[in-house]
Amino acid sequence: MNLILLFPNDFIDGSNRAHLTGRRYQYIREIHRVRLGSQLCVGLVNGKIGTGTITSLAGENLEMDVRLDAPPPYAIPLTLILALPRPNVLKRVLIAVSSLGIKKIIIIHSKRVEKSFWLSPALKEENITKQFILGLEQAKDTVIPEVMLRPLFKPFVEDELPAIIKGTVPFVAHPDSAHTCPYNIGMPATVIIGPEGGLIPYEIDRLVELGVKPVRLGERILRVETAVPALIARLF
Amino acid sequence: MNLILLFPNDFIDGSNRAHLTGRRYQYIREIHRVRLGSQLCVGLVNGKIGTGTITSLAGENLEMDVRLDAPPPYAIPLTLILALPRPNVLKRVLIAVSSLGIKKIIIIHSKRVEKSFWLSPALKEENITKQFILGLEQAKDTVIPEVMLRPLFKPFVEDELPAIIKGTVPFVAHPDSAHTCPYNIGMPATVIIGPEGGLIPYEIDRLVELGVKPVRLGERILRVETAVPALIARLF
Repeated sequence: MNLILLFPNDFIDGSNRAHLTGRRYQYIREIHRVRLGSQLCVGLVNGKIGTGTITSLAGENLEMDVRLDAPPPYAIPLTLILALPRPNVLKRVLIAVSSLGIKKIIIIHSKRVEKSFWLSPALKEENITKQFILGLEQAKDTVIPEVMLRPLFKPFVEDELPAIIKGTVPFVAHPDSAHTCPYNIGMPATVIIGPEGGLIPYEIDRLVELGVKPVRLGERILRVETAVPALIARLF
Repeated sequence: MNLILLFPNDFIDGSNRAHLTGRRYQYIREIHRVRLGSQLCVGLVNGKIGTGTITSLAGENLEMDVRLDAPPPYAIPLTLILALPRPNVLKRVLIAVSSLGIKKIIIIHSKRVEKSFWLSPALKEENITKQFILGLEQAKDTVIPEVMLRPLFKPFVEDELPAIIKGTVPFVAHPDSAHTCPYNIGMPATVIIGPEGGLIPYEIDRLVELGVKPVRLGERILRVETAVPALIARLF
């Protein structure tokens, strides 16, 4: 937790004083080991970053004076389209995505995604947001990514994808491709990452028809949680 | 398991027939759903890659005829020096490291590493190898990385690091650096990644004295498991 993320209802009566309990309180007491007057990096959700000065530490309560003066870090101009991974992998990927500064993620179905994954509680909005917050606290960011769930491949690709990739360089990670992923492209991108086992040829063909370029990262097949940071750091 | 990794004692009496039980057998039966005559991608540990053709599937036994004809993928010319992370993170990082094609990893101590982490069973040689094997099976590689444990920072940096970085471009990941990590360097590298919370100024200074360059990956502070694939994919 390199930044304590604050929410509007943490603030006392429209003042600049915030009151924390629960997870953030525990973390601040146990890991930061603060005293009265200690200063911490804080940020307002979807807003600015600044400093919180501890003004009260009585019992299970913690109050801080909050000054917000800096913008959050710039967003990576990338839309990530991800075939739904197994739930425990999804959780880690969502943390990574939000810590990397991606602000738009679309989770899609694909032939090799197990249908039962779509029933996982990990896909509930509040649980997705929970993982995003962990990533923001890690990366010192405040802006919660937007997420869309698309459990049908074909209608998504036919009806929505063309507008999404417009004005971006669209890639699909594909270990069999002859083209390696470029470096530092300096343009907005859309990156599609298939499931373990890969997208099937039909799916790759539909994407290529729309102008999406298959690229690979070296000779190796990577797990989703490894491929996501690798692709982002390569492209930006 | 995109490749079934075979070991010398899997082979029957110096023949080209391998006999599998246990974890690999289960995986092949349940996930690959093979039949007699099915072909699978296999590799001999630290050796070549090829094809295994199933010749027997009686009871809990599986036999295959093995033909090995291709070299494993090229190794990434990078030595990774990693401050010991917490054990459950270490496990995932070791899988990622081996799937990315890194063949030399040195795990070091640093001020902000909890000393108790050094007592973890995750650091036992057989447990490290187990994670490396998962990464190789994922990435279709056969070469088990070399690992060194160095629980004392100062003697490692003074006595061993100069020889390790010789002939390589040495970097240390440091979110406060003014220099961003370069792309596609085309030269052997040494990359040092500190613990959660970062290396302390004394440690950074000792590294800089030896010519190690602090670099950052964007504005954000990443977790170790995110930073490792990001740095590798950026540099190579």
